[in-house]
This record gives sequence, structure tokens and C-alpha cells, in this order.
Amino acid sequence: MKQYLITDEWSIREDGFHSDYLRMTESIFSLGNGRIGQRGNFEEPYSSDSYPACFVAGVPYLDKTRTGWWKNGFPTYYTRIPRAANWSRIRLRLFDEELDLARWGIDSYARELSMRRGIAYRDMEVTSPRGKGLRIHVEHLTHMARPDLCLVKYQVTSLNYTGKLSLMPLIEANLKDHSEVTGERVWNLLSEGTTPHVAYMHTQTRHEDAQVCYALSYRVGKNHRETPHSPIRIEKEDTIGFSVGIDVKPGDTVSLESYVAIASSLYYERKSLVGTCTELATHARAEGWDTLMEEHCRAWEDIWDEADVTIEGDPEAQQGIRYCIFQLYQTYRGDDPRLNIGPKGFTGEKYGGNTYWNTELCCVPYFLLATSRPIAENLLRYRYNQLPQAIANARNLGIGGGAALYPQVTNNGDECHNEWEITFEEIHRNSIIIHAIIRHARTTGNMDYIASCGLEVMIAVCRYWSRRVSFSEQRGQYVILGVTGPDEYQNNVDNNWYTNYSCVQCLKSTLQAIRLIASERPEDYARICRKTGFNSAEESARWEDIIRRMYLPEDKERGIFVQNDGFLDKELCDTSAIPSEERPLNQHWSWDRILRSCYIKQADVLLGIYLYGQHFDVDTLRRNFRFYAPMTVHESSLSPHIHSILAARIGDMEQAYDLFMHATRMDLDDYNNEAEQGLHVTSMPGAWMALVSGFLQTYVIDGTLCLTPQLPPKWKGYTLRLNFRQRTLRVRVTKEEGVSVTRLSGEPLTIRVYGEERMVGE
Amino acid sequence: MKQYLITDEWSIREDGFHSDYLRMTESIFSLGNGRIGQRGNFEEPYSSDSYPACFVAGVPYLDKTRTGWWKNGFPTYYTRIPRAANWSRIRLRLFDEELDLARWGIDSYARELSMRRGIAYRDMEVTSPRGKGLRIHVEHLTHMARPDLCLVKYQVTSLNYTGKLSLMPLIEANLKDHSEVTGERVWNLLSEGTTPHVAYMHTQTRHEDAQVCYALSYRVGKNHRETPHSPIRIEKEDTIGFSVGIDVKPGDTVSLESYVAIASSLYYERKSLVGTCTELATHARAEGWDTLMEEHCRAWEDIWDEADVTIEGDPEAQQGIRYCIFQLYQTYRGDDPRLNIGPKGFTGEKYGGNTYWNTELCCVPYFLLATSRPIAENLLRYRYNQLPQAIANARNLGIGGGAALYPQVTNNGDECHNEWEITFEEIHRNSIIIHAIIRHARTTGNMDYIASCGLEVMIAVCRYWSRRVSFSEQRGQYVILGVTGPDEYQNNVDNNWYTNYSCVQCLKSTLQAIRLIASERPEDYARICRKTGFNSAEESARWEDIIRRMYLPEDKERGIFVQNDGFLDKELCDTSAIPSEERPLNQHWSWDRILRSCYIKQADVLLGIYLYGQHFDVDTLRRNFRFYAPMTVHESSLSPHIHSILAARIGDMEQAYDLFMHATRMDLDDYNNEAEQGLHVTSMPGAWMALVSGFLQTYVIDGTLCLTPQLPPKWKGYTLRLNFRQRTLRVRVTKEEGVSVTRLSGEPLTIRVYGEERMVGE
Repeated sequence: MKQYLITDEWSIREDGFHSDYLRMTESIFSLGNGRIGQRGNFEEPYSSDSYPACFVAGVPYLDKTRTGWWKNGFPTYYTRIPRAANWSRIRLRLFDEELDLARWGIDSYARELSMRRGIAYRDMEVTSPRGKGLRIHVEHLTHMARPDLCLVKYQVTSLNYTGKLSLMPLIEANLKDHSEVTGERVWNLLSEGTTPHVAYMHTQTRHEDAQVCYALSYRVGKNHRETPHSPIRIEKEDTIGFSVGIDVKPGDTVSLESYVAIASSLYYERKSLVGTCTELATHARAEGWDTLMEEHCRAWEDIWDEADVTIEGDPEAQQGIRYCIFQLYQTYRGDDPRLNIGPKGFTGEKYGGNTYWNTELCCVPYFLLATSRPIAENLLRYRYNQLPQAIANARNLGIGGGAALYPQVTNNGDECHNEWEITFEEIHRNSIIIHAIIRHARTTGNMDYIASCGLEVMIAVCRYWSRRVSFSEQRGQYVILGVTGPDEYQNNVDNNWYTNYSCVQCLKSTLQAIRLIASERPEDYARICRKTGFNSAEESARWEDIIRRMYLPEDKERGIFVQNDGFLDKELCDTSAIPSEERPLNQHWSWDRILRSCYIKQADVLLGIYLYGQHFDVDTLRRNFRFYAPMTVHESSLSPHIHSILAARIGDMEQAYDLFMHATRMDLDDYNNEAEQGLHVTSMPGAWMALVSGFLQTYVIDGTLCLTPQLPPKWKGYTLRLNFRQRTLRVRVTKEEGVSVTRLSGEPLTIRVYGEERMVGE
Repeated sequence: MKQYLITDEWSIREDGFHSDYLRMTESIFSLGNGRIGQRGNFEEPYSSDSYPACFVAGVPYLDKTRTGWWKNGFPTYYTRIPRAANWSRIRLRLFDEELDLARWGIDSYARELSMRRGIAYRDMEVTSPRGKGLRIHVEHLTHMARPDLCLVKYQVTSLNYTGKLSLMPLIEANLKDHSEVTGERVWNLLSEGTTPHVAYMHTQTRHEDAQVCYALSYRVGKNHRETPHSPIRIEKEDTIGFSVGIDVKPGDTVSLESYVAIASSLYYERKSLVGTCTELATHARAEGWDTLMEEHCRAWEDIWDEADVTIEGDPEAQQGIRYCIFQLYQTYRGDDPRLNIGPKGFTGEKYGGNTYWNTELCCVPYFLLATSRPIAENLLRYRYNQLPQAIANARNLGIGGGAALYPQVTNNGDECHNEWEITFEEIHRNSIIIHAIIRHARTTGNMDYIASCGLEVMIAVCRYWSRRVSFSEQRGQYVILGVTGPDEYQNNVDNNWYTNYSCVQCLKSTLQAIRLIASERPEDYARICRKTGFNSAEESARWEDIIRRMYLPEDKERGIFVQNDGFLDKELCDTSAIPSEERPLNQHWSWDRILRSCYIKQADVLLGIYLYGQHFDVDTLRRNFRFYAPMTVHESSLSPHIHSILAARIGDMEQAYDLFMHATRMDLDDYNNEAEQGLHVTSMPGAWMALVSGFLQTYVIDGTLCLTPQLPPKWKGYTLRLNFRQRTLRVRVTKEEGVSVTRLSGEPLTIRVYGEERMVGE
């Protein structure tokens, strides 16, 4: 845990420079708008330890798979969103010195990330090695309303310097990134150039020919007035931009506004990319800082109008949950089904910006209830569009017949990960995709998506399950052998309860959907049968048989589900038995030691009980929670919010609150000593889920929205919006006044609060 | 299976050029003398598909570990014996053409590898693209009596060519090999040069500074007489040697003898390496071809005197078993405890020339009985010398207290492999090291080695086991979780019967040895206790408890031991259910599919029954054999001979014979479609073991050598030597005359044949 950031309900603030934590701070202060992402690195060069990076959504590089020892079935390439050009570089030079915070004296220093406005500020007073003092103010934003735009204002006041002060807004190509396997460069430089007003750089990732053009225009002023100047154009192989020299004396302020457009071939024709991009930059400059800033802040206002959650009486929780929501919207706009959300978003290279099951587990449930826009549906469509590759993937692993295994890690639909115990065996991921489809239907109250797309996915996934199970003669039951469950600290196990149970649920809900579509939308049904070759009689019978005879490991005496065969042979102990210097385990123990220990990386049996909550009574939940929670180390970000939800359900609000705070401030407080690698973006909705599914206990039962609100003892109250079946509701829970639910749009609606029906009329 | 080689009892012969099988032929025709190894590639350049390689024993390169995804506990580097310089290159040039079998016409072609003499011959008539005809005869040997020497005779007769014929004996540095991880070159070139008589090249592997010097001298003759000539010295960065031009007309024969010395820093001072090496080459040239050849053949005669096995009535078996013995002695001289035997010897790069448990499983039992020299003891000492690293290895994996886990793969004693399911979990390897020590004592009849070295190893291994087991409260028994057994087609399983059983045997035999040493050699015992800190009371009690309460999975109904927990939940089927085009499985099925299938890569339960054979009655063996053998695919070379031995024991001589042939001709007939990568050198003793432990049923029971000979129906008889407790016996089994055992050296001895005592007096 690192706690050096200042608690503030609407901002993240650092007071004083913590160079040891710079990589973490760079993660925390990341900016983005769903199309472009920028770690919070300094605009100017920094010669000490730092991890600067920028990313462009949907621009992948297909790297050759790197393995130690090849396993049959591995994919041939690994996809990743590579670091893009550094588009917001600004160098600051005095006569014979250049700003570098690693070498200059820092007399005062403060950063702020305004979540309300989506702007990062930096204010500092610095002294050069030769004693020249400057005051610097920086504002940086990635434009929320114009997703191709990034703006930086860099303002320098001389404290005691007289002479020429040069500011150099630059775009620096990232030509250093190489494939570690082939040695080839990730980026090709296609062209670059400058005119008096704009500099551009046109690049391309190898193999995919995904193209990105960057164009930079700027304004410069002295003492708040535009000032005549003769820029030097900079045109090097890897750097393009301008150098603007202004004579200053103490008290003078020079201000540079940098307008950078970033256009990719995902949204623009390749051949007009340079033209479009330079035009965007030029146009932005013409519109000017204030106009663009206002538009940007309005866009954030709209987001907060819909998405804000207020918590009274707990500023740390308030800051944390806003931060989660803020970073999620910075990563994903929700308007393009070709895009998805990487576990680190655009805040680090880890996980390559690829799609994991995290999306369905955390982001879909969030967007379903938190917005009235069809964001969740776009996430579902992403998978639908990749169904052909999921079918090819299953075939590649020896399971044909139209069966689909969705990849564990993908960008373009092809599996690209290569740990056999994950890639081949963490097959439970197939279930959450179906679960998300069902949840979508349940929350929106309509079957349109299932009829048009979803059912094809469901059938293909069920076909996978029906061929992936084995029949154990010994048990007279179906078993699922050789899997890795959600708990990745147990590999290649047999009969992971979660996997077996979720397989059965996939089969059941698909059969149900088939019956419904067949009877209510016979034309859709006929089309789907034609397209998939679904043989109802034969396939349904097999699925029914699996449903009936699936082995689900249970310990009757303890009254718990058993995570997997053999789990109870382990030496069962509490996480308190682990010396604190050995945590997180994955940074200290060898892999085999982790595997044979009882310690659970993340909710596994408990995840199943959360997802299929309506099937289990509170006593069952309590017994399982009390058995598994003490062994869980939460070394996955997908875990604490699930435990928080369940703790709330069994009424253990103290534990629920602690786990909520873990989920909510995971990165701000760096629980697992890894925030420097990037933020846990796909788990950001976890904070909200802990609140909505845990404290508020939101359920949809027989089509009715049911709430059973609780308040953590510390809180005075909380307020948020829920979107349900074309209505937007405002829910407010306070200690003083209890629960109030208001309808903000849509038809009147009956809901249940604490089991009592309540009409939400206005 | 590929069957293009000619059956011959003393030779491997290829008649006609099979370019498609060239890589395999290169493996098969490999030459070596335990210090240097040479694949059977052509001396002259070949521009089509080929895999030329030479190796120098004990000259490793420490490469950085290459992984896809890092697991905690992985070693930092991977050790391998890199390809050395090509020391036997000979180019042949006519006026404007150079010999290249990929481009020239081949009018006749024959190769022979004489196993009796250890010489490879090649005879061919070739026609150049411009119609020049040559007859070529090549002889190549790595000198068995002078392990630093390699000789080539290259003899060319002009059929229709008039003009200058150039022969160029060269040493070509291997500067192309790079680390795939760091990109650095494997070899540094330290110096090179030529004098009129000798060319040398001095090289070094990075990191280790293991040095190798090569020196080449030659003689050239025309029509069987030395001929005056003016050689051109060749001195390029990567090539050193001579070019010798001789004028020829049709009918003339030019003959080049190349004398190459190869000296490494393992045996010579670094600073005198160049001097020593050039001296060795010069001296060899002075002694001349005939002298050296005679000495070499005599050395092989001595080997065959001791090691030959004759089989009457089955030339394929005869050829096969001689080939196995031949390649084993080509790989390992047995006189240097710093060296061991790589699974591919010096016939390919796979497995990096490193040491695996193969050595203890196959080579130690062979050398114990097949030779009176202390070769097996040197192999044991290799492990003893590496005990400190084995202790460090266990500590690295979280198991301290003087416990040792021997590496799965090593060159210098450090673990260097990085598949977690193997490196961390295939821990049964620890047991075979103890088993080899015990077998050594049982066969030699004395405890000297145990007292001086072995017991330290045994205690350290037992300490590992005692900390690696877990106690299952549920079962009230000890369990061993998260292992990979000998069958690598099941990973991370619990309670692999073989592992659990062999753990118990380690503990038992160590306790027994401790009692013996304590009572009979109290000084040794005291020294060992001091050195290891062995606490007899406490540690013995724990070990006894584990012995008493170890869980050993069994299926009482079937009367079998269960390979591991969950094995019987698999869909159990015969290997005949696998389509032949899908074999070997590891080249066709994805890893997860292999893992969840019932198919067994190699003897696992059956290996335990073989190793601890005296504990099990024939009925138990039969039931287990009939259960497991039909599921075994033998995709490891460590398997068929074990099955053959057990089949012989249950009297199924048909299966025993088939499996013997599999073990014996594995590479010659290329059973698993991989001979091109190199030969299964460490499994070569398997052929002999199938004969001695299977057909002959050799056992040591209570110190008495017991034989229960059988004959495969096809055979007339077989003859071999056994060495047992300072005696050398000749055993002959024939259909006509039964069993005769003759004493060739040592004191008279009582043995048992078919359970009957027999005095072997002469």
C-alpha cells in the first residue's frame, strides 16, 4: 500500500514530488478519451526512472508468439496495442540549459487531476543547475468531445532569467520498440513534414498496416498576448515539430498551446489520413483554447450527470469511486463495437490492450445499469462479430462441429495468449459471455439482441461444452477435466465447481432461449437453425443429459461446494498464516508452491454464487463465504468487489466495506504493489458493483427490480442513478431519510424495496 | 517409421541417396568419442536441406532464459552445449565448379557406418553440371583412443576431368549462432592463424569462457604417393585452412588426409591451448594415417570385447542392439565425473546436451552390469558434486533446511529448464537418484560409495520429501500435491502413485542405510551427521511417520494402483482408438486435449513396478500391465524397454519382443518421427535392459544374482557379458543348449538360474 496522494472528492492531488513513486503517479494521472490514451508522464524529457507511454485505440501490432517451450495448439502471434508516438512532448530550453526534473532543483511542486473536468494540471517552481528560476504551469487534456484531439498548455514564468526561452512542441516517433522475437521494428514511418503552421508524422504498424497520423499546431503568447516569433521547424527522422524562442526577463510569462490531432485508419481512409489530420489540428488551433476547453468540460459534465455516485461522510470512498468511473470513461466511449476494454486500458502495456473476460464480468453489468446508452450491447456485439474466430479456435483445439471457444486474450478475435493452463484450460470464460447476454436481456427486458445475434453465440458455446465434458464411468456423471477455474492459483484441475456449474447454466439458459425464440419468433428461429445447422432433437437431448448428470463437487458435511477435486486434501489455512513480507504471493512464492497451497487468487466458488445468486439461499452463501474468504488473497482485481457484494448479502457490513474500499481504491492506494504497471481499468466498475449489487443489493427477479439497501456504518448516505427497462431512476439512501427512488425518465415502474412493492411514479 | 537403411549386423548402410531423409541420416551416421561429436553431415558444402553440427563435451553456453510468460521460481539462464566450429569441412573445386550434392548429378552413392571400427565411409560417383565425372571415397572417424582427434580421408578420382582439382580442408567458425533472447553471439573468436603446416582457430563461449581450440594439419597425395604442392593458406574471419590444387587427368586419384585436433579448457590450460592443440595436430600428421587408424580400431575392439551382445537368428535385432551400444560409447567415455550424457548426446541440439533423469534411469543400470569399469560411479559422483546446487534449488522453491531438489535439466548443477509443470513439479526425479545409489551398492556389493558420498545425497533428498508432502486432514494421510509424474501427459496432478511410492522408498532405503552406516562405519556416520546437521531422532521419526501414513492411490476392484487422483474419471480407451495420422499425439493434438485424455506418454505406474519389482507379485504386475499398457503411446524413449521388461516378466514374449524391437531400433526405424533432431542416446541402454532385465530377468535378490532366461521365439540364442561384484560372467542362452554361464574373471560365484543355485566356477 502506498498512500501519498491527497484525498479530495473531485480531484487526485499530489503535493510535493515523489520521484520514487513516479511510475505509479504516471499511471494514476493517466488521461484518455477512449480513442487515445496517455500516461501521466511529463511533457518535457525526464532523465531518471519513468515509464512514459501513449496509445491509440484499435491500432494493434501482431507480434510473433514468444515462448520458452512450445506447446501444440499455441497461437502463432501475440497481439498488442503498441506504444505510439509521444505526441505531447514539449522541451523547454534556456540559453544553455534544458529542463529536466531529474537534474533541476524543485522548489515547489503540485499535480492535480481534475476528475470533474478531465484535465491534468501541474504547477511548480524549479531552479536550473546554473540557478535560473522558473515557475511552470501545465494543463493537459485529451478531448472528450473530439476524440482525435489532445491539448497541452505549457506556461512558463521567468523568476530570475533574462534571455531566450525556447519551447519546443514535438511529436517523437516511437522507433525503439522492437519485437523481442523477430527483432523487427513495430512501427514504420511512412512520411513526415512541417509547414509554417503544422507538423505531421504518418506511421504504420507492421503486418496489420494499421496507420496513425499525428499533426501538431500551436499558438504562443507572451504575457497573455500572442507574440510574433520565428519558429524553427524541426524535421528529424524520429522527431517533428517546432522550436519557438522568445526573449524574456524576470516576470515575463510565455505560454504555449499545443493542438495535436491523432487520426487512425480505424476511422479515416488511409490515403487521406495526412490531409485529414493536419486539417483537424489546424482547425483546432483556429477555434482556440477556450472554445475547445469549454466543449471538453461540457462533455465531462454530461458524463457526470449520468454516471456520478455521491457518497456522503466518506471522502476517501467518494474520491475512489469517482476515480474508478472517471478512468473507465476515459478508456471506453462505448460507441464502437470494434473496440473493447483492456485490463489496463491505455495506462500501461501489460495485457497488450487486449480483451479479457473481465469485460463481461465487470463492464457489461456496469454499463447495463449505469447508462441508458447501448454500451453493453456494443460490448456484446464485439463478441458476436468474433464468433467465426471463436469457432476456429475450438476447432484448432480439436473440438469441431460449430463449437466455439472464445479466446482468453484477443484483439481481433484470434486467441493470442500462450500459457497452456490459461489459453487452453481457463475455459470458464465461455460461460460469462452467455451470462452477459442473459443479463442484457434481463435488464433491458427484451429479447431483440438474443434473436438477432445472441442465440448464435449461445448455441456455439453450448456445443463447445457438450463436446468438452467427459463421461466418467466411475461416477456415472459428466465431468470436466483439465481446467483452470477463475482461481488461477490452481491449474489443470478436474471439476472446478464454477466451471461445471456455469456450463450447466449455459446449457439451461440456451435451451430456454431456444424455446422462447422458437415459439415467439419462429422466423428468427428458422434463420438461426439454418445458419448454425442446429439440430434441436439431437443436440437438445445431449444438453439435457449433461444438465441432469453433471458432477458438481460438494462437501455435504461442511455444506459447501468444493472448488475442485482434491481441494480438500490441501493443508487449509488462513491468509493470516502468510508473513506479510511474502505478499503478494505471486511476487514471492514459486509457482508450484502457490499451486499446492490452499490460497485462492480470486473469487471462484464465490464468483459462481455471486453470478447465479438467485439459486442459493443465504445460509449456503454464508457457509461457502466463511470457508473460502479466509483463504482468498485477492491477487486479482476481479475479486474484492465480488467478496464485498457477498459479505453485504450475508450482512457482514464491516467486511463488505473493507472489500469495497479495496476494490474502490485498489490503484490509488496500490494494494497489490503494481499500480506502476498501469491501472486495473476493467475492474474499475467493481467499486460501483460493490455498491449497487452489494450495499444496494440490486436484483432483477421475475422482471422486477428489487433493492435491499444497506449503509456502511460510516456513511451518511449515497446517491446514484440506475437505468432499467427504458427508465432512469435516481436512488438515494441516507441514514436519516432511508431509501428514496425517483424516476427521472421513462414510464412509471413498480419495483421492490426490502421486498415491498413500490410504484416509482415520478 | 522410415525403413530405408540396410540391415547388416555390424554396419549401418544406405544404398542410394535419400535426400528427403538427409537430416535423419545425418543423425544416424553421427560419430563421436565422448569428447567430441559430429553429426553425419557431408564434409563438403551442401546447399539444400541439411542440419550439420559438431559439439565439444563440457563446453557450455549460458543463455538467458527465454519464456513467454514468466513464472516465479524460473531459473535465470538456460545452459546448452552450442554447436562448435565445423572442424571437418572439405571443399572440392574443379576449374570453375564446386562439389555440391544438391546440384550435381549423383550416379552412385553408398554410405556405411562401421560399428565394429567406428568409421564412416562414403562412396559415390558424381557428375558436375558441366559434365565432369568424379569418383569419391571418404573415411571419417573421431579417434576413440585419442579423444582430441578427428580424422578425415577424402579421395577423389577423376573419371573424365583434366585440369586443376582443389581440395580445401577448413575449420569454419560457427559465428551465426546467437542467443535468441539477448541477440549476442554465442562464440567469441579469440585468435586464429596458419603456418605452412597447421591452421588453428581459438574460440570461447560467452559468460562461461569455456575455450576450444581447433588445429588442422593435412597430407595430400596423388595416385597413392605424396605429391609436391603449394598450398594457399586461407585466413578469413570465420574460416581458416588450406587450399591444395593438384593437376589431374582422367584416372588420377588425389587423396587428402586431414588431421584435426580439438582441445578444450576442460582438459588444458587456457594459456597453452593454442600451443597444445597445434602440437597435437602436427604430431598426429607425423604419425600418419595407418598408425592412428590401427590404434582407433583397437580401441573399438576393446570396447566390443567387453560390450558386445550377439543375437542369433535376428539380424535386425543384432544390428539394432549393436547400434545402441555403439552410440552410447561414442557419447560417453565414463572417465570424467564432470561430464554426463545428454538425451541426444552429440547428435543434435535438442535438450542442449544437458543432464536429465534419463541417466539414472537407463545409463546407470547399464554401466553397472555391462562394464567392470567404475563408469556408473562417475555418474553418481556427478550428482554428488552438484549437491550444493540441488540444495539451493530446493531453497529457491521455498523448501529449506538442507533439502535438495535435483534439477530436471542441468549442465553445471543449476536448474536451467523453465516449464513450470516440469521444472517445479516433475519432482520424482529426486527418487531415481537415490534408486541409482542403492542399485550401485546392490550390484557392487559394497557400501563405500554410500559412506563416502551417497548418504549425504540421500539425506538431502529425504529432507526434501519430508517437507514437500502435505498432510491431508480429510484422509488422515500424507499426500503429495501438484506434481507431474513420469507420464508428462498429465500435469500438476495430485498423488501420482509413482511419486508417492518412490518417495516412501527413498525414505525407507535412506533410513536403512543410516542404520547400517551408523553401526558399521561410525566414523563416517559421525562425519556425515556433522556435515549435514542430520538430527536422527527428529528427522527419522518424521520420515517413519510419512512411510507409515503415505497415501498410495489404489483401485481395489480392478486390483491396480491408480496413476494419480482423478485418473479413473477419464474416458478410458485403447491407443487403437487414435487414428494413425494423429500419432504421435504430441505432434497433432493440442496440449489440453492430450492432458485430459487417458493416453500415457511413458511408463508411470509401470515404471514403479519395474523399479521396485521385488515388492510386487506377478499377478499385481499383470493386472497393472494389462490396464496401463493399452493406453500407453510411448512418445518418450524412456518407455518401450520398461514395458518390454514387464511383458517378459508376465510371460508375454510376443509383446516383449515387439517392445524390445521398438526400444532397439527406435532411431534406425524412426518410430516417433523425430530421429532427424538427433538420436535418443540416453535411451540406448534400453535395448540392453530389455534383454538383460526382460528376456534374461536378471535380479539381485539378497545379494545373489538371479536369472530366469527366456528366448523370443524367433531367436536361436544370445550371448553377453555381465559384471557383478568383481566378476565378469559370460551368459549364453540358446534354444538348443539352454543357459550357460561362464566366469571370465574374478572369484567363483553362486548364482541362481530359474531359481536353482548354480556355482559359476569357470
